[in-house]
Amino acid sequence: MFEYMTVRELYELTLNSYELEKDNLDYIELQGWVRTNRNNGSIGFIELNDGTYFKNAQLVYNKEDKDFEDYCKYGTGSALTVMGKLVITPGSKQPFEVQVKEIVLEANCEEDYPLQKKRHSFEFLREISHLRPRANTFNAVFRVRSALAMAVHEFFQTQGFVYVTSPIITNNALEKGKNNFSIDKNQALEIFGKDAYLSDSSKLNNEAYVLAFRDVYSFGPSFNPKMINTNVFANEMWKVESEIAFADLEDNMLLAEDLIRFCVNYVIENCPEEMEFFNKMIDTSLMERLNKVLNREFSQMSYTEAVEKLLEALKKGYEFEDDDIYWGMDLKLEHKRYLSEQISEMPLFIIDSPKDINCFNARINEDGKTAASCDLLVPLVGELLKGAQREERKEYLIKRIDDLNLDKEKLKWYIDLIRFGGCKHAGFELDFDKLVMYVTGMENIRDVIPFSRTVNNLLF
Amino acid sequence: MFEYMTVRELYELTLNSYELEKDNLDYIELQGWVRTNRNNGSIGFIELNDGTYFKNAQLVYNKEDKDFEDYCKYGTGSALTVMGKLVITPGSKQPFEVQVKEIVLEANCEEDYPLQKKRHSFEFLREISHLRPRANTFNAVFRVRSALAMAVHEFFQTQGFVYVTSPIITNNALEKGKNNFSIDKNQALEIFGKDAYLSDSSKLNNEAYVLAFRDVYSFGPSFNPKMINTNVFANEMWKVESEIAFADLEDNMLLAEDLIRFCVNYVIENCPEEMEFFNKMIDTSLMERLNKVLNREFSQMSYTEAVEKLLEALKKGYEFEDDDIYWGMDLKLEHKRYLSEQISEMPLFIIDSPKDINCFNARINEDGKTAASCDLLVPLVGELLKGAQREERKEYLIKRIDDLNLDKEKLKWYIDLIRFGGCKHAGFELDFDKLVMYVTGMENIRDVIPFSRTVNNLLF
Repeated sequence: MFEYMTVRELYELTLNSYELEKDNLDYIELQGWVRTNRNNGSIGFIELNDGTYFKNAQLVYNKEDKDFEDYCKYGTGSALTVMGKLVITPGSKQPFEVQVKEIVLEANCEEDYPLQKKRHSFEFLREISHLRPRANTFNAVFRVRSALAMAVHEFFQTQGFVYVTSPIITNNALEKGKNNFSIDKNQALEIFGKDAYLSDSSKLNNEAYVLAFRDVYSFGPSFNPKMINTNVFANEMWKVESEIAFADLEDNMLLAEDLIRFCVNYVIENCPEEMEFFNKMIDTSLMERLNKVLNREFSQMSYTEAVEKLLEALKKGYEFEDDDIYWGMDLKLEHKRYLSEQISEMPLFIIDSPKDINCFNARINEDGKTAASCDLLVPLVGELLKGAQREERKEYLIKRIDDLNLDKEKLKWYIDLIRFGGCKHAGFELDFDKLVMYVTGMENIRDVIPFSRTVNNLLF
Repeated sequence: MFEYMTVRELYELTLNSYELEKDNLDYIELQGWVRTNRNNGSIGFIELNDGTYFKNAQLVYNKEDKDFEDYCKYGTGSALTVMGKLVITPGSKQPFEVQVKEIVLEANCEEDYPLQKKRHSFEFLREISHLRPRANTFNAVFRVRSALAMAVHEFFQTQGFVYVTSPIITNNALEKGKNNFSIDKNQALEIFGKDAYLSDSSKLNNEAYVLAFRDVYSFGPSFNPKMINTNVFANEMWKVESEIAFADLEDNMLLAEDLIRFCVNYVIENCPEEMEFFNKMIDTSLMERLNKVLNREFSQMSYTEAVEKLLEALKKGYEFEDDDIYWGMDLKLEHKRYLSEQISEMPLFIIDSPKDINCFNARINEDGKTAASCDLLVPLVGELLKGAQREERKEYLIKRIDDLNLDKEKLKWYIDLIRFGGCKHAGFELDFDKLVMYVTGMENIRDVIPFSRTVNNLLF
């Protein structure tokens, strides 16, 4: 008699009431959690959210109900099963309401529940990361994050890319592992017979696979032990890394641009309520910026030109915290933000940066000083993505490994790849958490990762 | 003039030659790697694979070509760009061949290339994990693995589940972290101010999210430092973990069954050549077994009955290496295999196992001795999936934490979840690597993980 429905299904159905009449839907059953519950002594209203939809279902109960007194007591956070009559309410704020026939309390919510009606700061909500997905903003953030992850997989898989789950535990920590978390030495020796680290990139492993499958990607956590305290860094971050064979830097940038456009379009189509919320409550220029991404080409600038632009800005009196700007430097977050926010209206590729700020396997350009690299800058987060064409010329690769004094024995397998049919190939890594920031307008990476791990922050 | 094609596109097109005539496709360009190259002095054949398709394209060149001598030298593994004329060959082994107009050598393959024509053992190929995806079997394994990953995401996302990227680095290592890898103590203290471990399950974190979103899943690497040397264990494994609210053990098992059926169907539909290969070369009963999964319900048996079956087997003279079989024991791989291979024709859920072999938060049954658990057993790999209804009754949960002497301070946030609207919920974890074994018939987990990490094995 009572048809089981989710709140999402109810909205989808009632927004098209013709369908509803056709289905002759009357009595329904819902389950969810109380967002608010208020009454005036004779009639009461519960906003019920079941996690399937951004909006709530409004339940109406009244004094004639035999359990009216009980219903009044169901506080924010309690879990309910509700049987009721569905009533379409055209012209009102919500397209429908549910007139309660019976409510069963599935789980109580104790009185010290911290998510009461009043607004909380994001900082406070970080301290209760186990509860914050129940708050509107975070509910929206984490649904969009989930949709973005699906967008990534769909983008690559529909184009025939093979998904590679590259390993996290590695012995290939270059530069003596200073860029890597280490596993407890005794444990590593006991189990593996050697030191073990956590990988900060699956690039090299993906290259083994790209030379078998032509187009591959990976998508998983990466680890970086740096003691950095900014809004865009966490010690554990998810990366999308793609690699394409028979391809150069230009192909790589086209793919990256396509990927980002696909992701933006995907969330606009699949999370319209959430995106409306972000545009209204978090960043009112969000949709304007994202629509540009959909409709216009990304910009491009050489690293050399970028440094010139920064020097010009300095001359004009623009103040950087780090104003020691010179050719060869690794641009800082503030410089990247300046370039993407003040110089370019569109996401901006900085190409051909100095070889010494690139990975050892970035392909050296003809000038001998720069590498075939591309870093994509966007407002707020700075560098969203970085990529490079890889060195496929064995003699250049070996010389570079020697010049940088890297452990050639550990890289033997990698050199094999180039020795055995290692054709032209290129790849990029996209910081997935920053993509969530970019698409939602959220300003702190701690607020887009379910349980973030940053300096002095390891809870839950 | 030369239309750029992949080998997959060529097969798809030529298997429907009507389409081909319509398109009037004549001259094409291909890129890929030489699998074999043979000639009789006047005519030569190259099998070219570009990684997009399981099968190769056959290139034909002959003595009249001005670079005939060069073409003859392009060895297995070299990378080529080929321009040629497409010729449909109805009735022959391959639906088409490419008559070479010009070949450009993109990358040479040095002579010590280990993947020459002769067959290699899987053990040998493990030692060259960076090259083995170029071998037929592994090319098929890793394409199926990728398709299975997509199946998992599609299954959950089309049903509205939210994907949660749960953290790897954790301080919540229960039982004093003996089931966890540890991060180097000094590094952890410096960065986080406390000990840090690698998570072996995202279950608890997912529970925070299920109580906000109703249906969630995670899919990522998990870590286990045990010194186990079997065909089904690795120290780094990928897990799919799902959690559903307002749901009990029965709902949980239905979901698990649906998931596995969906995945099996997905690879049969999306990787037909690979599945045919496995059925022919790896396990001739594979498709028969998988078709049963598609068409029949899974079986179910209580733990108590399972122990009885094992004792019966012992009495009948069946030999187990571990024959100390008693109620309360954690079943070993051989016992699980016996039950799934000798007792049940279908994947077999063992339900209601002793509470003491379950996680602290498994819901205690009315008998006080068992928990609402479900372990899914299948041939070859033993336990493919394990799940449980979670304890939503606060007093039971706290008592269990006390009885097990777990660190209540570390679990405070978890207890919060139950205190604040923690309704009935259940979840499972699926070992993704074992799913790949199950679906391909491959017998060793080291052969279905791109770069496996097992005891004394940390390469690449």
